[in-house]
Amino acid sequence: MQGGRVKVVYVSYPTGNVRDESAVIAAAENALGLRPLLEQRGHTLVGTTETGDGLDRELADAEVLITTPFWPVYLSAERLGAAKNLKLVLNAGIGSDHVDWETARQHGIGLAEVTGSNVVSVAEHNVMQILALVRNMMPAYHQVLDGRWDVAAVAERAHDLEGKTVGLVGLGAIGARTALRLKAFDVRMLYYANHRRTPADESVLGVKYARLDDLITESDVVCLALPLMTGSQALIGRERLAAMKPGAWLVNTARGPIVDRDALVEALESGHLGGYAGDTWYPQPAPADHPWRTMPDHAMTIHCSGMTLQAQQRIAAGITEMLQAHLADEPLPEDYVLVDPSAS
Amino acid sequence: MQGGRVKVVYVSYPTGNVRDESAVIAAAENALGLRPLLEQRGHTLVGTTETGDGLDRELADAEVLITTPFWPVYLSAERLGAAKNLKLVLNAGIGSDHVDWETARQHGIGLAEVTGSNVVSVAEHNVMQILALVRNMMPAYHQVLDGRWDVAAVAERAHDLEGKTVGLVGLGAIGARTALRLKAFDVRMLYYANHRRTPADESVLGVKYARLDDLITESDVVCLALPLMTGSQALIGRERLAAMKPGAWLVNTARGPIVDRDALVEALESGHLGGYAGDTWYPQPAPADHPWRTMPDHAMTIHCSGMTLQAQQRIAAGITEMLQAHLADEPLPEDYVLVDPSAS
Repeated sequence: MQGGRVKVVYVSYPTGNVRDESAVIAAAENALGLRPLLEQRGHTLVGTTETGDGLDRELADAEVLITTPFWPVYLSAERLGAAKNLKLVLNAGIGSDHVDWETARQHGIGLAEVTGSNVVSVAEHNVMQILALVRNMMPAYHQVLDGRWDVAAVAERAHDLEGKTVGLVGLGAIGARTALRLKAFDVRMLYYANHRRTPADESVLGVKYARLDDLITESDVVCLALPLMTGSQALIGRERLAAMKPGAWLVNTARGPIVDRDALVEALESGHLGGYAGDTWYPQPAPADHPWRTMPDHAMTIHCSGMTLQAQQRIAAGITEMLQAHLADEPLPEDYVLVDPSAS
Repeated sequence: MQGGRVKVVYVSYPTGNVRDESAVIAAAENALGLRPLLEQRGHTLVGTTETGDGLDRELADAEVLITTPFWPVYLSAERLGAAKNLKLVLNAGIGSDHVDWETARQHGIGLAEVTGSNVVSVAEHNVMQILALVRNMMPAYHQVLDGRWDVAAVAERAHDLEGKTVGLVGLGAIGARTALRLKAFDVRMLYYANHRRTPADESVLGVKYARLDDLITESDVVCLALPLMTGSQALIGRERLAAMKPGAWLVNTARGPIVDRDALVEALESGHLGGYAGDTWYPQPAPADHPWRTMPDHAMTIHCSGMTLQAQQRIAAGITEMLQAHLADEPLPEDYVLVDPSAS
């Protein structure tokens, strides 16, 4: 805090196999460009890819831990309890389901994330993955790579998005931006959310409210845009997958565990689902033998939707803002705060 | 014609490796479902995948030839001259650049296509391929398949579409529908067309007019939405590719020959272009060793954008309408006609 020396630990993915190491400011080594800010004031910054024992050793005397959903640190009660000096956990991204909020609160550890940093990025990813599934892009792309030209094999499962029913589960910052982008495609849009929106909101977004189970049975495309929490864990399980229309498509850029892993594989292997595209997995990084890598009819990406160069800049700006406030002993901007220990 | 027996030849792609042969009504064997219409009246329908000598033998006594851009028959002056009985060429799709219009006119052969059948389909394909390039989807997808998880390698070249400048070359039925869909992504849109649109059109579409060479130098994404004709052959050649912004992306669902084949490969191999996505090739089918299959940073599809199940239905309806008119000795619907021999 003010006057003292603060140790900040930043955990993220390695720089990896890139062309220009400096471009990926969110990689562990680059630590969102925070190094000058901290070191010029005598503080310590550790950038690491460690998420196991090596991280626990660093956490023993760390005051601030910065994590990211793209390379998550699972902050259990035990781990938080062992980090005796920890005062603040910052999420360089959105979706802090990797943190045990209640334990953080009990230990007086603050938790905040960079609200809004990824919302446009993920909304774009949603539209891209919906189109890739509905239009059957991946088989056409594979034919290019494989030297083939079998139009019929692509055409028999290629649809226009126009006229389809898209069901958005969740209509927060990402869901609403997804709706705004989809509206021009002349689709019918349903949404489910805990709270029904105003008639004006529904009109501008072009969406109609539906109960979750009605949305599931009526939609050609189901798009998940809700956080992972107790109520959404395995929300799309075997029964709801079976209730989806034959040939329907499922898009999940939200969080992997919202969908039952093995039930999804079965629904694709049986041919009941037309396809699945997602960006989020569990665990992350996904092991090389994760069944979602090899299941049929997918258009998956490794978790990168909120990691565009522009999103990285927004994340770096938000984390910098919060660190500066923390070092100055000032409150963090309210819209970033998830757990405020001073309020409890 | 009315009373006489008419031979109709339909040339398209083979049924290929599909799950349900009947689903792909545009395949050669299924012949757009025209068989009952023709055979119940005593006419002959030949569905074939032949585009060479085998087709020439069929054409010797054919009155109507139906072709498709997805499996094109190149109708040269020589071939049209040898088809002594040919009265009508129908294009089951849009873009009749595979036909020598002037020779058709001289020989009194009509030419028509199913105007509008693909416009929504291709506009959707444009948005999909723009997003796939800008957001760097293909490398992320390959990592899924290859068992990897290198977020940095994806992130260093992943961008939000938001805020980018998209240049549409051509603003006809497809270009305008592409603009309507892109508008919600908060992009800056430029367009070039032979004729400037009205202020009202520009406002609704969210586009600003630019000269072609200004559009090329100012756009992050260049999207081609114009027909292949004398003036657009190799329109995007070595010089215009070099004039594009470093790292810019090029999308071409229009026609392969609008882009210089080898100059494009060089622009990608040098890293000057950020990526290329297209759906159209030359020749088609593209041979297994076509350099666009293996050039870096592409998100290509085999020509299928206008071959969704819905587009096939629209094509079948349009061709049926035209055949019925022809058999009844009535004029074809005006909006379909490209060469009207009775008018010359």
